[in-house]
Amino acid sequence: MKRILVANGPNLNLLGSRETELYGTVTLAEIESHLRVLAARWDDIELEFFQSNHEGELIDFVHAHGPRAAGLVINPGGLGHTSVALRDAVAAVGIPTIEVHLTNIHAREPFRRRSLLAGVCRGSICGLGAYGYEAALEALARGPVAAR
Amino acid sequence: MKRILVANGPNLNLLGSRETELYGTVTLAEIESHLRVLAARWDDIELEFFQSNHEGELIDFVHAHGPRAAGLVINPGGLGHTSVALRDAVAAVGIPTIEVHLTNIHAREPFRRRSLLAGVCRGSICGLGAYGYEAALEALARGPVAAR
Amino acid sequence: MKRILVANGPNLNLLGSRETELYGTVTLAEIESHLRVLAARWDDIELEFFQSNHEGELIDFVHAHGPRAAGLVINPGGLGHTSVALRDAVAAVGIPTIEVHLTNIHAREPFRRRSLLAGVCRGSICGLGAYGYEAALEALARGPVAAR
Amino acid sequence: MKRILVANGPNLNLLGSRETELYGTVTLAEIESHLRVLAARWDDIELEFFQSNHEGELIDFVHAHGPRAAGLVINPGGLGHTSVALRDAVAAVGIPTIEVHLTNIHAREPFRRRSLLAGVCRGSICGLGAYGYEAALEALARGPVAAR
Amino acid sequence: MKRILVANGPNLNLLGSRETELYGTVTLAEIESHLRVLAARWDDIELEFFQSNHEGELIDFVHAHGPRAAGLVINPGGLGHTSVALRDAVAAVGIPTIEVHLTNIHAREPFRRRSLLAGVCRGSICGLGAYGYEAALEALARGPVAAR
Amino acid sequence: MKRILVANGPNLNLLGSRETELYGTVTLAEIESHLRVLAARWDDIELEFFQSNHEGELIDFVHAHGPRAAGLVINPGGLGHTSVALRDAVAAVGIPTIEVHLTNIHAREPFRRRSLLAGVCRGSICGLGAYGYEAALEALARGPVAAR
Amino acid sequence: MKRILVANGPNLNLLGSRETELYGTVTLAEIESHLRVLAARWDDIELEFFQSNHEGELIDFVHAHGPRAAGLVINPGGLGHTSVALRDAVAAVGIPTIEVHLTNIHAREPFRRRSLLAGVCRGSICGLGAYGYEAALEALARGPVAAR
Amino acid sequence: MKRILVANGPNLNLLGSRETELYGTVTLAEIESHLRVLAARWDDIELEFFQSNHEGELIDFVHAHGPRAAGLVINPGGLGHTSVALRDAVAAVGIPTIEVHLTNIHAREPFRRRSLLAGVCRGSICGLGAYGYEAALEALARGPVAAR
Amino acid sequence: MKRILVANGPNLNLLGSRETELYGTVTLAEIESHLRVLAARWDDIELEFFQSNHEGELIDFVHAHGPRAAGLVINPGGLGHTSVALRDAVAAVGIPTIEVHLTNIHAREPFRRRSLLAGVCRGSICGLGAYGYEAALEALARGPVAAR
Amino acid sequence: MKRILVANGPNLNLLGSRETELYGTVTLAEIESHLRVLAARWDDIELEFFQSNHEGELIDFVHAHGPRAAGLVINPGGLGHTSVALRDAVAAVGIPTIEVHLTNIHAREPFRRRSLLAGVCRGSICGLGAYGYEAALEALARGPVAAR
Amino acid sequence: MKRILVANGPNLNLLGSRETELYGTVTLAEIESHLRVLAARWDDIELEFFQSNHEGELIDFVHAHGPRAAGLVINPGGLGHTSVALRDAVAAVGIPTIEVHLTNIHAREPFRRRSLLAGVCRGSICGLGAYGYEAALEALARGPVAAR
Amino acid sequence: MKRILVANGPNLNLLGSRETELYGTVTLAEIESHLRVLAARWDDIELEFFQSNHEGELIDFVHAHGPRAAGLVINPGGLGHTSVALRDAVAAVGIPTIEVHLTNIHAREPFRRRSLLAGVCRGSICGLGAYGYEAALEALARGPVAAR
Repeated sequence: MKRILVANGPNLNLLGSRETELYGTVTLAEIESHLRVLAARWDDIELEFFQSNHEGELIDFVHAHGPRAAGLVINPGGLGHTSVALRDAVAAVGIPTIEVHLTNIHAREPFRRRSLLAGVCRGSICGLGAYGYEAALEALARGPVAAR
Repeated sequence: MKRILVANGPNLNLLGSRETELYGTVTLAEIESHLRVLAARWDDIELEFFQSNHEGELIDFVHAHGPRAAGLVINPGGLGHTSVALRDAVAAVGIPTIEVHLTNIHAREPFRRRSLLAGVCRGSICGLGAYGYEAALEALARGPVAAR
Repeated sequence: MKRILVANGPNLNLLGSRETELYGTVTLAEIESHLRVLAARWDDIELEFFQSNHEGELIDFVHAHGPRAAGLVINPGGLGHTSVALRDAVAAVGIPTIEVHLTNIHAREPFRRRSLLAGVCRGSICGLGAYGYEAALEALARGPVAAR
Repeated sequence: MKRILVANGPNLNLLGSRETELYGTVTLAEIESHLRVLAARWDDIELEFFQSNHEGELIDFVHAHGPRAAGLVINPGGLGHTSVALRDAVAAVGIPTIEVHLTNIHAREPFRRRSLLAGVCRGSICGLGAYGYEAALEALARGPVAAR
Repeated sequence: MKRILVANGPNLNLLGSRETELYGTVTLAEIESHLRVLAARWDDIELEFFQSNHEGELIDFVHAHGPRAAGLVINPGGLGHTSVALRDAVAAVGIPTIEVHLTNIHAREPFRRRSLLAGVCRGSICGLGAYGYEAALEALARGPVAAR
Repeated sequence: MKRILVANGPNLNLLGSRETELYGTVTLAEIESHLRVLAARWDDIELEFFQSNHEGELIDFVHAHGPRAAGLVINPGGLGHTSVALRDAVAAVGIPTIEVHLTNIHAREPFRRRSLLAGVCRGSICGLGAYGYEAALEALARGPVAAR
Repeated sequence: MKRILVANGPNLNLLGSRETELYGTVTLAEIESHLRVLAARWDDIELEFFQSNHEGELIDFVHAHGPRAAGLVINPGGLGHTSVALRDAVAAVGIPTIEVHLTNIHAREPFRRRSLLAGVCRGSICGLGAYGYEAALEALARGPVAAR
Repeated sequence: MKRILVANGPNLNLLGSRETELYGTVTLAEIESHLRVLAARWDDIELEFFQSNHEGELIDFVHAHGPRAAGLVINPGGLGHTSVALRDAVAAVGIPTIEVHLTNIHAREPFRRRSLLAGVCRGSICGLGAYGYEAALEALARGPVAAR
Repeated sequence: MKRILVANGPNLNLLGSRETELYGTVTLAEIESHLRVLAARWDDIELEFFQSNHEGELIDFVHAHGPRAAGLVINPGGLGHTSVALRDAVAAVGIPTIEVHLTNIHAREPFRRRSLLAGVCRGSICGLGAYGYEAALEALARGPVAAR
Repeated sequence: MKRILVANGPNLNLLGSRETELYGTVTLAEIESHLRVLAARWDDIELEFFQSNHEGELIDFVHAHGPRAAGLVINPGGLGHTSVALRDAVAAVGIPTIEVHLTNIHAREPFRRRSLLAGVCRGSICGLGAYGYEAALEALARGPVAAR
Repeated sequence: MKRILVANGPNLNLLGSRETELYGTVTLAEIESHLRVLAARWDDIELEFFQSNHEGELIDFVHAHGPRAAGLVINPGGLGHTSVALRDAVAAVGIPTIEVHLTNIHAREPFRRRSLLAGVCRGSICGLGAYGYEAALEALARGPVAAR
Repeated sequence: MKRILVANGPNLNLLGSRETELYGTVTLAEIESHLRVLAARWDDIELEFFQSNHEGELIDFVHAHGPRAAGLVINPGGLGHTSVALRDAVAAVGIPTIEVHLTNIHAREPFRRRSLLAGVCRGSICGLGAYGYEAALEALARGPVAAR
C-alpha cells in the first residue's frame, strides 16, 4: 500500500466559505472526499489528509507520516513564501513532493512569487483550483518523471 | 467543437533525444499522440499542436488560431522568461491559458524564476514532465475555475 | 452588540516587565482593563481580548471570532513583518482592521519597516504606546472612513 | 499654555472637494474647527494650524513656531516621502511630533511606503481619515510615552 | 525624396480588433493610410511601412531600408523592453529615430518601464494613441532639433 | 471655450540662453508665442501659460486653474523625477495631462529615468525639443484616445 | 546554581536519522546526554534542554525559563532566518545567547545567510556539528567576553 | 572684480542655536562675517551670501547671480540629496561650484550618502564644520585645478 | 573530419560597413575567408559558417548542425544578453562552445555585462576584434582544456 | 605530528592595546601562548602561528604551510569581507579551515556581514572573543564532522 | 610638538607624470614640499609623509605612527573603496582623520562612490586637487570641530 | 624591441599542482617557457614575466615596467574582482591590456562575475586555460584593433 500525504497550510480550512470570488466555493472537506474517490482508482493508494494553521503542526505531520509515505501533496498557503522550517522538514523526509496553490500565485502580490518550498519539490501546480490537487495526486501515483 | 491549442517554444523539438537526464525520453511527437488520445475522451475537443524555435512564429500561431480557440496550453521554453511580445500575444487573444514547464523551473537558475507569461495565464504547471500537458488539457476541458 | 477583537502577537505578554525603556511599564492586563473601561462608553461594544506567541493560534482566533466581529485591533508583534499566513487570515475574514505597534517601527531596524499586514488593514498606528490601542478602538467604534 | 502645531503639506487644501472616494468629504477647515473644539477640553492647549503647498513655507513654519511649541502634528502629504529638508527641520526643533496620513500609505504605491519623516517622529498614524488628527492631538496632550 | 520608415513590432497587426479598451479601435491599416495622407503634405517625403511579429524581420527591415532612409518611426511593441539586437540594428544604421507606444508605458507593468531602444533614439512618444505616429512623422519631417 | 494649461517647472526660464547645445536656442517666450498661434487654429481653445522654479507655485497653479481646464501640458523639469506632491496635485484635479521633456530623458542620467508624474498622465513626449509642446497641445485638442 | 538553557528549533528532532550526510549521525538525545556530562564539570551549572517544531513554543520556553537563566544556547533551525518574533523573545529576556548551527550556513543557500537572530546574540558558531553546542556551553560557562 | 556666491539651503538659518552637538555653535551670520574678512585678503573678490529654506528661491538665486559670478560655494542642506531641479540650475549656469556640508554626511544615514549635486560640482568638502566654507572659498579663489 | 560551427547573431552582417569606429572595417565575409584559410592548417577541420538576424534561425542552425559538430564558435550579438532560448539550444547539443564578442562588452553599457550564454560555454573572448574568432577556432581545434 | 596553522589578518597585532571595549584586553601573544598550552594536551599537535597586515603575506603563508598542515584556524580580520585572493588560497590548499572573528560580525556594520571566506571553510565562530580560537583548535583536533 | 601624518595609497607615486588631464601636473614630492612649508606656519606641527602601493604597508604605517600622532590626512586611492582592513586600522588608532581625493569621486564611476573609510573619518575633501591636502592639514591644525 | 608584460596575480604560483581538475596540470613556469618560444616568432618582441600574491607588488610591477612596454597580458586572479587600486595602475600606464582568466569566470560564483579590471582593458579572454595567454600575446603582437 502506497500512502500519499495531503497537507494543507493556514487558512485553507476556510475554503469555500470566504473570499469565494478568489478561491471558489469548494470546501476542503469536498476536496478530501473527491480525492479519496479518485485514489480508489488505484488499488494500492491510501490518502492521509491534514490541515493546520500552525507551522509547527505541519512540520510534526510531515515528520510523523513522511518517512512511511510514498509522496506528499502540499498546499502550504502563506507558509510557502516564508517558512524555511517547513522547507527543511520536507527536505528531511525526502519523499516526492508536489506543491499546489489554488490561485495563480505568479499573478498576485510580489511577496507571493518567492517560494521557499519549490527548491525541494519535484513540481508545482498553481491556478487550477481544486483540480490542482487531483493532478498532483495523479502525478505522484504514476511515479517518477525524469530527474530534477 | 472546442479547439484547444498546444504551443511549444524553442528547443522542445529536441525532446527525448538530448539532455534526457533532465527532460526525460519522451518525444514531442509522443506527447502529441498521447494528448490526441486523451482529447478523444471528450466528444467536443479538437487539438491544434504546434512547435517552433521562432518567437515570431509562435506569436503568429497564437494570433491565427487563438481567436477561434477555447483554450491554450503553452510550454514557452526559454521565451517564457524573456518575451514580452509573446505575453502580449497571449493577452491579446484573451483565451484561458495554462503555462507548462517540464522541469521545476523554481529549482533551477535564477533567471528561470521570472515568468513574463504567468501574469496573463490562468495557471501554471511545472516539474511534472509530460504529464503536465495532460493536466493542463484536462483543466481546460473542465472549464473555468474560480476567478483569478 | 458589536464585537471588537483585540489580538496581540508574540512577546506582548511580557509587556511592562521587560525592556521597559523601550516598551514602557504598562502591562497587557492593564491595557485590557483600560480598554474595557473605554469600551463601556459605547453601549453596544463588546471586547474580545487575546494574546498568543503562536502564529497558528492567532490565525485560529481570527478565524473563530472574525466572522461575527465588527472590527479587529491587532498588534502582530514580530509576525507583522514575516507572516503571509496571518495576513491571509485577516484578509479572509475581511472585517475592518487596524494595526497597532507600541513603538515607532519606522525608526527601528530595516526589517521592521516591511509590514505584510498593512496591505489588508484600514489603518495603522505606531509609536503612541498603549494609547495606540485606544485610538484604534475609537476609530473602529466610529465606523467607516473614506474608502481605501 | 501648551501650544500644539498642526502642519499640513501640499494638496491638503483640496480636502473634501476632490478625490473624495479616496480622501473623504471632510474639508481641512472642518478638521481645524473640530480640533479646536477638542483642544478646548484641555485648559492649557492652544492650536496653531497651517497649510502650504510649499516645502519652504512648511520649514519656515516649523522654524518659527517649533521652538515655543509643545508638540507637532504633521500631515506632510507627498513631502513625507521626498523631503530631507523637512525632516531636518523637524529634527532641528526637536519637539514631540506625530505624523498623520489620511489614507493607509502602506497599501498604496511603493513610493509612498518610504517615509523620510518617520525617523524623527514619536509616532505615526495612517488610514484613519480625519480621526487621525484627533488621535495625534490626544497623544501629544497626554504627554510622553516610553522612550523611543 | 526623403524616405521615412515606419516599423511596427509584434502584435500591432491586431490593432483595432482586440483589447480595444486599451489600444482603441483604429487598425494599423488605417494608421498607415492616414500617415500616407499626412506625408503627402510634404513634397519630398515618402513612407515605407512595415509590421512583423518577428524580431529578425524587423532587424532585416531596418538593415535593408535604413541606410537610404531619412528617419525611422518605430513602435517596437514588447521588443522595445527586451531586444538588444533591435537596439543594435537601430544604432547601426544611425538615422534619426523616434520610438512610439500607443499606451502610456510608464503607467503599466514594471517590466514595460525599461526601454532598451530609448538610448539610441532621438525621442519617444507614448500614450497618445495613433496620433503618436503623426507627431513622430512631423518631428522627423521638420528635421533636427538640438543635439542629444 | 476650452482652456489648456501649459505649466513649466524649474530652470525652463533659462531656455534658449544656456546649455543651448543640449536644449536648443528657442526661448520659453518663443514657445509660448508659437503655441498661441497654433491654438488659434481651433476656435475654442485658450491657453494659460506658466513657469516657476518653485514646486509650491506649480502646485498652486494646478490647483487654481486645473478645475476649470480641459487639459494640462506640463514640462516638470527636474521635479518630474522627485516630486510626489506635484504628482498628487495633477492627480487631484484629474484632467487629461501630457508630460513633455525637451530632451530624451531615457538617454540621460539614471535618476532622470524614473518619472513620478508619468503614472497620472495620459501620455508622455520627450526628445522632440519645442515641437513636443505642439504635439501635446494637438493631442489634447483632439480629445480622448483609448482608455489608459 | 547557574541555569543554561539549550533550545532547539524545527527539525532538530530528526537529527541522526535523516540527511545524515549533511547533519551527521548523532541524535539530539545524544547531544543532550553529552552536554549534561560536560556541564557536570562545573559545580554550579544546570542545563534546561528543549526542542520544538513550533515557533510559539520556543518563544514560550524562552519567556518561561529565560528570566531565571544565566545563558541561552540556541539552534533555531530554519527559524533563525525568518522569525522576528523569536528574535524579539531573545532580546526581551536579555541573557547572554549563543546561536549554534550544525552546518556552515554561510556556504549554503542564499536565504540561509540572513540571520535575524544574530543581532541579539553574543556570538555565533556554525559548521562544527555537535561540537558547536559544547563550545557554546563552554563560552557561556566562562562568562563575559569583551562587550559587543 | 570676481564675484563668489555662497548659497545655503534649508535649516542652515538655525545654525548655532539648535542641534549644536551636531552642527556646532557658530551661526550663519558669523560664518558670513568671517568669510567676508577672508575674502578681503584678495583684492578682487566680492561675496554674495544667501540662505533660503525654499528650493525655488535657491534656484532663482543661482539663476540671477550665477551668470555674472566666478564661482559658487553651496551648502544645499537636505536638498543636496533630493533636488534634481537645484542640480539642473547649477549645471545651467556652469560656473565652478564646490559643495560644502558641515558634518561628514558619509557617516550618517544612508539617504544622506547620495548627492544629486555632486555630479555637477568641481569638488566637495564635508565634516570640517564652518572651516569647510573657508576652504571652498580659497579653492575657488585660486582658480582651476586639473580638469574633472 | 571534425566540423566546427561558426554562428553569428544579429547585425553581424553589417560588419565592416557601419559603426566602423567601434567594430572595425573587416567584413564578415572576410572573417569567414580568413578562418577557412586558417582551418586548412589542420587536415581534419571543416568549417560551417552561418549568420542570421533571427533568434529562431540560430537555434535551428545549432539544432541541425550541432549534433554532428566538434565545436561551436558563437558571436551571439545582442542575443547573448537576452536569449534564454539560444542558451538552451547550446546546452542541449552540449558541444564545446566559445563565445566571441568583437568589442569589450565589459566596458560598455550595463545591459551588455550579463551574458546568458556564458554559463553553458567553455570560454569567452571579447575585445580582440576579428582575431577573437581565430583564437576561438584554435582553442577548439586543440581540444579539451581542464574541466569546467 | 599534525600541524595546525593559526593565521591572523590585519590589525590583530593591536589586540589588547586598542579599542579594548570592543576587542578585550587579551593580546595576540597571550592567545598564542594559551593555544600552545592547549595544544600540548594532544600528543600529536603542533601549532604554526602567524600574523600579518599584508594580504599577500597571508596568502604566501597559506601556500607555504598549508600543503603539510592538518588544519587552519584563520581570523582574516577585514580581509574576510573583501579578499577573493585569500579565499582562493584557502580553497587551493584544501585543508579543513575554521574562520574565527573575535566580535559578532553579524551584529556590526552591513559590510561585515558578507564573508567571502566562509564558502570554503568547514565552519565559523564569532563573538566569543579569544575563546573562539580555542574552540576552533579543538574542533580541528577532533577531526572531521559530517560532510558539508 | 603635534605630529600630523600624511598617508598616500596606491598609484599616487605616479602623480604629475601620468593621466595629467585627470590628476594635474603637480607631483607628490611637490605636494610634500608645499605641505612642509605650510606646516612651518605653526610652531608645533611636524609632518610625517608616506606613500605605498601596498595595503599592508599603509596599515603598518598607521599602526606605527598613529598612536603618537595628533591627526591623519589620508588619500587612500583606490583602497578607500575596497579595504575594510585599512578602515579598521584607522579606527583602531582613533585619531582625527580627514580623507582626501584629488578628483571629485562622486562624479566618476559608481564603484568610486562607496567609501569604506568615510565612516571612521572626521571629514572628507574631494575634487580640489592638491589644495585638498592643504585644507585637510589646516583643518587638523585648528583642532576639533563640533562632534560627529 | 617591443616589450610585452605578462603579470600574474595571487595563487597562480600554485598552477599545475593543486585544484588540477579546475585549473589543469600545466605550471606557470611551463606557460612562461611556452610563451617565450612563441614570442620568438616575432623578431621584435620581448617578454617580461611576473607573478606575485601581493597586490602592491603587482602595482609596483605595472608602474616600473608599464611605461616602457608595448602591452600587458594580466591574469589578476582574485584581485580582478576586488582591486580598484590595480585597475587604477593599469589605467595610469595606459598601455594596451588584455585580461586573461584560465577558467570561465562567468560560469562560477556570482562574486567572480564583476570585473573591476575589464573597464580599462582592450579585451578579455576566459575559460581557454593556458591557451588564453597565447591568444592574448598574439592579439597584442598584431597591434591595434578597432577603437574601444
